[in-house]
Amino acid sequence: MSTTYRDILKWGDKREHKVDKPTLNLIKEKFSLTDQDINNTYKTGNNEVKVTKECTLDAKIIEQLTAIVGTENIATDDYARASHAYGKCYTDLLHLRNGNIPTPPDAVVYPRNTDDVVSIVKICNEHNIAITPFGGSSSVTRGVETPKGGISLDMTKHFNSVIEVNEINSTATVQSGMYGPAYEDFLNERGFTCGHFPQSFEYSTVGGWLAAKGAGQASTGYGKIEHMVLAVKAVTPAGVIDTKCYPASAQGWDLHQLFAGSEGTLGVIVEVTMKIRKHLPQNTKHASFVFKNFETAVEAMRIVMQSGIGLPHLYRISDPEETEVAFKTKGFDGTLADRALNMLGYKSGERCLMFVAVEGAKGYTKQVIGSLKKITRKRGGFFIGASPTKKWLEQRYSSAYMRDPLMDLGIMTDTLETAVMWDKLIPVWSAVRSYLKSRPKTVVMVHISHVYENGANLYFTFLSPMKREDDVKEYLEYHKGLIDTINESGGSLSHHHGVGRALAPWMEKQLGAENMKLMQAIKNHLDPNGIMNPGNTLGLTP
Amino acid sequence: MSTTYRDILKWGDKREHKVDKPTLNLIKEKFSLTDQDINNTYKTGNNEVKVTKECTLDAKIIEQLTAIVGTENIATDDYARASHAYGKCYTDLLHLRNGNIPTPPDAVVYPRNTDDVVSIVKICNEHNIAITPFGGSSSVTRGVETPKGGISLDMTKHFNSVIEVNEINSTATVQSGMYGPAYEDFLNERGFTCGHFPQSFEYSTVGGWLAAKGAGQASTGYGKIEHMVLAVKAVTPAGVIDTKCYPASAQGWDLHQLFAGSEGTLGVIVEVTMKIRKHLPQNTKHASFVFKNFETAVEAMRIVMQSGIGLPHLYRISDPEETEVAFKTKGFDGTLADRALNMLGYKSGERCLMFVAVEGAKGYTKQVIGSLKKITRKRGGFFIGASPTKKWLEQRYSSAYMRDPLMDLGIMTDTLETAVMWDKLIPVWSAVRSYLKSRPKTVVMVHISHVYENGANLYFTFLSPMKREDDVKEYLEYHKGLIDTINESGGSLSHHHGVGRALAPWMEKQLGAENMKLMQAIKNHLDPNGIMNPGNTLGLTP
Repeated sequence: MSTTYRDILKWGDKREHKVDKPTLNLIKEKFSLTDQDINNTYKTGNNEVKVTKECTLDAKIIEQLTAIVGTENIATDDYARASHAYGKCYTDLLHLRNGNIPTPPDAVVYPRNTDDVVSIVKICNEHNIAITPFGGSSSVTRGVETPKGGISLDMTKHFNSVIEVNEINSTATVQSGMYGPAYEDFLNERGFTCGHFPQSFEYSTVGGWLAAKGAGQASTGYGKIEHMVLAVKAVTPAGVIDTKCYPASAQGWDLHQLFAGSEGTLGVIVEVTMKIRKHLPQNTKHASFVFKNFETAVEAMRIVMQSGIGLPHLYRISDPEETEVAFKTKGFDGTLADRALNMLGYKSGERCLMFVAVEGAKGYTKQVIGSLKKITRKRGGFFIGASPTKKWLEQRYSSAYMRDPLMDLGIMTDTLETAVMWDKLIPVWSAVRSYLKSRPKTVVMVHISHVYENGANLYFTFLSPMKREDDVKEYLEYHKGLIDTINESGGSLSHHHGVGRALAPWMEKQLGAENMKLMQAIKNHLDPNGIMNPGNTLGLTP
Repeated sequence: MSTTYRDILKWGDKREHKVDKPTLNLIKEKFSLTDQDINNTYKTGNNEVKVTKECTLDAKIIEQLTAIVGTENIATDDYARASHAYGKCYTDLLHLRNGNIPTPPDAVVYPRNTDDVVSIVKICNEHNIAITPFGGSSSVTRGVETPKGGISLDMTKHFNSVIEVNEINSTATVQSGMYGPAYEDFLNERGFTCGHFPQSFEYSTVGGWLAAKGAGQASTGYGKIEHMVLAVKAVTPAGVIDTKCYPASAQGWDLHQLFAGSEGTLGVIVEVTMKIRKHLPQNTKHASFVFKNFETAVEAMRIVMQSGIGLPHLYRISDPEETEVAFKTKGFDGTLADRALNMLGYKSGERCLMFVAVEGAKGYTKQVIGSLKKITRKRGGFFIGASPTKKWLEQRYSSAYMRDPLMDLGIMTDTLETAVMWDKLIPVWSAVRSYLKSRPKTVVMVHISHVYENGANLYFTFLSPMKREDDVKEYLEYHKGLIDTINESGGSLSHHHGVGRALAPWMEKQLGAENMKLMQAIKNHLDPNGIMNPGNTLGLTP
């Protein structure tokens, strides 16, 4: 078995992905790269993992943990520790390419059941040993690092079953370490869907979805994970929090919601009860539109969301630059259709794509897509058929896997997202783009992909040639200005990636001191010794 | 100005309501009452209010409070204190009819602005004086009592404005003491609706809606208040919690949600930012159905909610007894239509009414009502036109005002509600009905009125002749068994009335000790001296 840094850093699909010809040509053009530059491969991390930091856990503790879970469910070898040291943040990937793992966990533990988790949390709480819950490792916010060592609690090995599907209630109770595809397949076989499809779907778990407060690509119709969760079972140092399931209630606070966005700081989520929906793919309606510019596309989208016609499920707009890149890399550029669009005033470099998919009962999808088309056309949207949306859906997960081959070429590749009220959308989009563009030769692609009556998210993807020296440092300086810009222009720190340690320094400025104290008080109650995912996650102490 | 106990106890509309002839006849029949019984009026509370408990606030404190708000905004007279001593719980009304006000607030204070509230909370926190925030006084859970005296902070006098309507964001920021009708009128004039119409609408405030975690009659489409709130400003002893407004986010916990269901225990809500919706009454579609029995009606409702056809806004089922009472008191009984329904198998005493209204865009309402009719007919629902639903809507608020004239007749009249998952609905309905019926000659009318994909509420209205001695004690014994039954059969303590002090004793059993400790920790952080609505509200200490 290969045990290289590259095995760990690869985002998503473990096959090697290649940059296709049109994308490569675009990159060469945008970044003025020669073939020589392209062949000058960046550190690929194809060397064997070596962890230099010794496991500092007392032998007695290892013994006790082993007694709980069995020898097959605890690992202290280099590869296990290295592969639980990072998520999939851009800087994580740089560190791995650099062979830099200063603070891996001391051990990786795979609990078999809730009793195991209770015993492990008890021991760690008594001995002040850090616990970092670990799922699909797709955190892009430095949410699963172990700056204080301790144990990484990997839930994927044993907590991977659906406990119950209740067809009458339209709910499923599922263990936290279950991966997206396994969960969805299980539901599909019974005529249901989970409705939650983040881009990380293939390499993320139910517990991670909730802990990071994630959103799927159909969230406009189905809601974010916090809108789907009905009950939670979590093991905290203060005890087991096990909430009852109601469709809604008025008996104090919805405590299960405290685990949405908890990012491992309160305890270990072991079970989640969620809404599920009828799986009716045969009824899904798709539509794609082009708009003359971003502003009119956003305006049309807002009006659709506020007009009371029902909700689309997938609902996206690509801004002009993302639209341009999409057209170029999909071979649309220069075609007859392209020229016709240009002549009609849908000009390259200004025009924007909108993708729509509506799910549900036949009559519903038909009505929503019909009403949406009417509003969209009236607002200048040019209908270009269903197939662009369908094509986009086909590569909905794999497009992200281009990140590794791009980094091989020395291209900084990262994404960042925020939520804004409608009246802040254009100002934030504009301010963040300006900031990102202040770095020479930077491609900035923006889309809206999670839409509400009151606002939407903005998702920024940026590519730029790296300075190959001090790769982490130069990135962090750039990143700091980026988050400052979002924070100051009125965006949230995140819409669905979460905060982790990457955005923690901005939390107090963003939320205010009183709100942070309230969050800390909740943390202190459930985790008085500060063992749960410590090291400033969410801006909390420790 | 009249200042009787009756002026205080009257629920809602301050006009005197009378029991109409058909209802009176039904009552006489059901409870075997003679004309003599009917004329033997129960204590009506038509005597002048007299508060015997002296104001125990230090003169210096009164001076300080007066310096803050001005003499016109502080009251210590008997009527002011008495009218802030209770909400509209059945026992509250009994106490008022009995002239029993053992623990009124020491003073009623009407803050003019947020600065006033900050100053008042500061002084009270320093001197350990209880503060009970007070809105429309429609609490039916003993949520606004002042067992520790102190001040009742009445928000209705000055906190009654809309601060901002943001038409782009489709939001309104409104002061907490604004009454429902004033808020709705303000929005209607601008083409919007608040979408929140609790039965207490005319006598409840925005802050109260949020504090009690209320639901309106159109909640099936628009959601409960916690689904509408986007941001909160609240003054707590620990400082001002002022949350920013996003359509959704992933930056820690949605702290504004802690004020949904806070029932005054955390601080004083001063401003709320909420979703608003386009006001399109011209598009609303109504439908009414009769089913052969409760089970098939519930089954049809569940399938509608889970089939992906979109959502109705008002969605109700009356159980057989409520349906029978409705038919009898509306003069339908014995008509040709009644006999026809009976012959078709929709038998009196078994049949159930279903009411539907769908709001939104024209195409949406048409599609949803059409799909809903199809599903409903297929499941045995007999369409009886739009007018029964429209007629019900006309008396949506005033039907509750019958409570006072019924109590004048010596009829115990109360309501209680719970939320259940679908698979618990029939068992809870059945168990609670059985319990309520264990009291001889009790009329028990049940409806479902807030519906979700995963379950619904159950709303029980019960009428029974009082034992006129020990009216409070006999009620509380009956009530205890009722809540025990709900708790043990799988219902929540409340769906939208809240907990207050009436249901507080069941909180730990319902939520579990660990969850209660977590709630208490949140309370302790924001209100370390326990001055906010103390006296076991929500089961919290003090």
